[in-house]
Amino acid sequence: METTTLNVKGMTCGHCVAAVEGNVGKLDGVNAVKVDLGKGTVDVTFDQGVVSLAAIREEIEEQGYDVE
Amino acid sequence: METTTLNVKGMTCGHCVAAVEGNVGKLDGVNAVKVDLGKGTVDVTFDQGVVSLAAIREEIEEQGYDVE
Repeated sequence: METTTLNVKGMTCGHCVAAVEGNVGKLDGVNAVKVDLGKGTVDVTFDQGVVSLAAIREEIEEQGYDVE
Repeated sequence: METTTLNVKGMTCGHCVAAVEGNVGKLDGVNAVKVDLGKGTVDVTFDQGVVSLAAIREEIEEQGYDVE
């Protein structure tokens, strides 16, 4: 397991938190995901053997946000 | 039918638009509802004989927004 903090632009409200946490959390290999709306960050704990960081970033972008 | 423009604070993203338009639009007597995110307004067309403006305001506030 590895935990990474991503800087994500465009998350503005509780719906955005739910969209990111809900959809990233559904990915196989993702153990935990936590959005900090004030900081604009997403902490993700995941198993690199199961899911890539690239796939996680892609999922966030599919929800309509920019990952820096 | 009457159309009223409400000033609503706190709507920030497409999810907020969907929450307001979807839930207000479900009320009996509401014919049309349109959020303008940039202006912070909600245009509602409704039948005063079926639904009150107070009930519409309440529904928006239940979604977590402040109606001025």
